[in-house]
Amino acid sequence: MTDVVVDISMSLDGFVAGPDDGLGRGLGEGGAPFRPTGVDKEVGDEMSAGTGAAIVGRRTYDVVDGWGDESPFGFPVFVLTSREHPRRDVGETSYTFVTDGIESALAQAREAAGDKDVSIGGGARVVQQFLAAGLVDAMQIHLAPVLVGEGTRLFDHLGPPLPRLEQVGVRHSPYATHIRYRVENRSR
Amino acid sequence: MTDVVVDISMSLDGFVAGPDDGLGRGLGEGGAPFRPTGVDKEVGDEMSAGTGAAIVGRRTYDVVDGWGDESPFGFPVFVLTSREHPRRDVGETSYTFVTDGIESALAQAREAAGDKDVSIGGGARVVQQFLAAGLVDAMQIHLAPVLVGEGTRLFDHLGPPLPRLEQVGVRHSPYATHIRYRVENRSR
Repeated sequence: MTDVVVDISMSLDGFVAGPDDGLGRGLGEGGAPFRPTGVDKEVGDEMSAGTGAAIVGRRTYDVVDGWGDESPFGFPVFVLTSREHPRRDVGETSYTFVTDGIESALAQAREAAGDKDVSIGGGARVVQQFLAAGLVDAMQIHLAPVLVGEGTRLFDHLGPPLPRLEQVGVRHSPYATHIRYRVENRSR
Repeated sequence: MTDVVVDISMSLDGFVAGPDDGLGRGLGEGGAPFRPTGVDKEVGDEMSAGTGAAIVGRRTYDVVDGWGDESPFGFPVFVLTSREHPRRDVGETSYTFVTDGIESALAQAREAAGDKDVSIGGGARVVQQFLAAGLVDAMQIHLAPVLVGEGTRLFDHLGPPLPRLEQVGVRHSPYATHIRYRVENRSR
């Protein structure tokens, strides 16, 4: 059964990762890219292995310059956007631009994911839209030991009914606390 | 050497505990009081054993009704307030009301704590004042698997220079992820 899993890094004060950070790959400080090792790599590798497709927002895609010419993902990525854009293929990764909303993106991502999970990689607004629609089954939050002070908060603009969370796993390195939550959506 | 340690519960979306929650004792959901056991109790007991005095804000004190007629703390508590109020003693716990600011409260708390730590128990505004003044040495954050959606954020109104954090310990139960940070204050 495919789960929809939010996979994102957040500072201790609740802000999402800056421009240098990839899909749930940890928060670098001072703009240095973060090369995960140990537990951080383990968590990232498990997420990748369980993921069959990802959804990101256009801004996230632009901020990382479409992940450049490398192919960091072994699965299709669906990019939510308001403007049409032709599909782009980089190695094993395909980027499909979806202009007709989150339900459409999710349907396409589910289809592509097979029996694996669909990862929601950010940004904050996309995560908030999926949470508000009651479409999230789990969250993998990479909590970075950093205070950012300003920017875009991950959990913002959330109205009732708020989902109930169950904390199902915690792993940590000096660089992050990785917390997995099950999300129990309430009827509205 | 006495450390100043912020000890507080926070929801995943960054809000501080509601009225039912004691000093860093975890976030109850739906207003039910939380009786820690296992890891949660262990973390709380260690904090208590290492603490020689605590500082809280008047609103926090009022919200829990001065912790009633029981004596949950085995150390003196200093309550930051703008209005004079006579010292109150409940069993082993004394409540001293401090009207001349955080430095004065800290000096009195340090004096009372001996070689143990001074705990900053909340609310958010008090924590923010101590952080802004560069007076915090460590933080013990009890991150509750709850989305609250609105209220008072713990990390808000933080301006530069923001302290650097070092994540020095993580323990978890199904009820919370307890994260300990060292706080490295930057010169301003």
